[in-house]
Order: sequence, then C-alpha cells, then structure tokens
Amino acid sequence: MAIEIERKFLVRGDSWRAQAYRAQPMRQGYLVEPGGRASVRVRVVGEHAHLNIKAAIVGSARAEYEYEIPLADAEPMLASLCIGRVDKVRHYLEHDGRTWEIDVFEGDNAGLVVAEIELEDEEASFTRPAWVGDEVTDDARYYNHALAQTPYTRWP
Amino acid sequence: MAIEIERKFLVRGDSWRAQAYRAQPMRQGYLVEPGGRASVRVRVVGEHAHLNIKAAIVGSARAEYEYEIPLADAEPMLASLCIGRVDKVRHYLEHDGRTWEIDVFEGDNAGLVVAEIELEDEEASFTRPAWVGDEVTDDARYYNHALAQTPYTRWP
Repeated sequence: MAIEIERKFLVRGDSWRAQAYRAQPMRQGYLVEPGGRASVRVRVVGEHAHLNIKAAIVGSARAEYEYEIPLADAEPMLASLCIGRVDKVRHYLEHDGRTWEIDVFEGDNAGLVVAEIELEDEEASFTRPAWVGDEVTDDARYYNHALAQTPYTRWP
Repeated sequence: MAIEIERKFLVRGDSWRAQAYRAQPMRQGYLVEPGGRASVRVRVVGEHAHLNIKAAIVGSARAEYEYEIPLADAEPMLASLCIGRVDKVRHYLEHDGRTWEIDVFEGDNAGLVVAEIELEDEEASFTRPAWVGDEVTDDARYYNHALAQTPYTRWP
C-alpha cells in the first residue's frame, strides 16, 4: 500500500511541449461506477497492464494499490468488463527538480490537458511553471474515473 | 482468463459433514456494488489473499480472473474499501469422482448452506448426492456478491 499525494492543475497553452522528454499513450477503464468507496482501474501502457485500486476520497492523499496483470487479461477486461474508458497521452517533463506528468486526453475528453505533480507530503513546496493554471486537485470532475463516466466534451 | 462453469445447490441436513475432509475459513469483501458488469472480490484464506474479477452474468459460465495479492494489502481493503462482506467456512468432499465445495455462511448470512460443483462444460453429467437440494445456479440472490449486500438473514 502507498499513500499517494498528488496535486493536479489545468494547463495553459502549449509552451510545456518543448520541455517534455517522453510521451506515453495510455488506455484505461474502470470496473466500478464513480461514487463508491474505491476505484478499480485497468490500464494498458505499451505491452504492460496494471490493475490499480484507490480509495475514492476527493483530495490529494489516498491509499493506492497496484498490481501488474497479463496484457491478455487486460484487453478483454477493457473491451467487455469496464464501464467507462479514458484514452490519453501522458507527457513527462522536469521543472526545478520535480517531475510533472501532463495528460493530454483523447476521444470524448479531447481538449482537456491536465498536469500532475507527486509530492512527498501535503505541505511540500514546489515551483509552479508558467504554463500551470488553476488547481483542480479537489474537483472530483477531473478524476479520471469521473471523466470515464462524464467526459469533458459533455460537461454542461 | 478462465471460463468458470459451476452449478450451485442448496444443502439439506448435515449428513454431508461426515464425508468432508477439509474446512477452510474464508473472509471476503467486494469493491463493487452488485448490479454492474463485473464483481471485484478480495478474499483472505489463511495467510493468502487474492483479488478476483468476474463478469457479472447470472448463470453458470462466466469469465474470471484471479491474482494473488499481499495479505498486508488485503486487510485494509477488507476493513475500509469493501462495501460488503461475506464470512464463511468452505468444506470439501468427494462424491463419485467429483469435488463438492460446501459453504457454511456466518454472520448476517448464518443459516445458509450452499454446495457448488465445478464442471468441465455446461452439459457435463454428475451424480447428485442425497443431501443436494434445489438448484440455485441462476438465482442471483445466492451470488456471494449479492449476499454481501443483502444477507440471507435479511431476505424478505
């Protein structure tokens, strides 16, 4: 078990792209409706698949469990057991000694770009790059689990 | 992935107990409400814990995935992430070359005793022991997932 502390921000413009050093397409789905006690996610990145279980608490610190599973299991789970789907490309960049992950969403969530930073504790300080916009850590609509059910392009 | 074919029956009386050769206490909980596409179960048996994902199709044949996970992960999942809980003792016995599993439920499901047999295909024949009662394979109330939410002692 890990306690994950991450903060999430909207992204302004495209200036971050020049600094990104890696891009990783991700396909993921959820075995649980949003709104319960936990999210159960199946994620495929390249040839690797993982099952991830997270406490569904809005905010930045929550219990998280992750297990690698066979790709041959993950594909039929994504195809027929998952109730919602999120496809995105995750970009990585370094800023002032910290790693940022920038998710550029696709499909029904196209247009949404979000940046996340993982921190050692809830009070940790970090430098905000110029392209970082409003913080949305506590806004449940931006949970990937919520985006699988109510995608960005269909927000009221 | 495995396709699991099992049939489930109510149990009459206690005569089966003389034949049982093993008893295994099981504690399990579910990360998903019943009624969705899949069930996600955490089960602890002795020092071992597994995560099990099953397509939620009523009937005897359904896709199933199972992964061993650390006991240290399973305990907090059972304690705080699971939305329903089922405790039971599983007994094993052999009858005419086939293994029967007899689940004696505890807690809110006390009084319920169910026997299951796993078969190689849906048409496979088997001998019904005298203590086997009505078949409940297709009755979703007897799913452990359903029993976690609506236990036997609270049935209308």
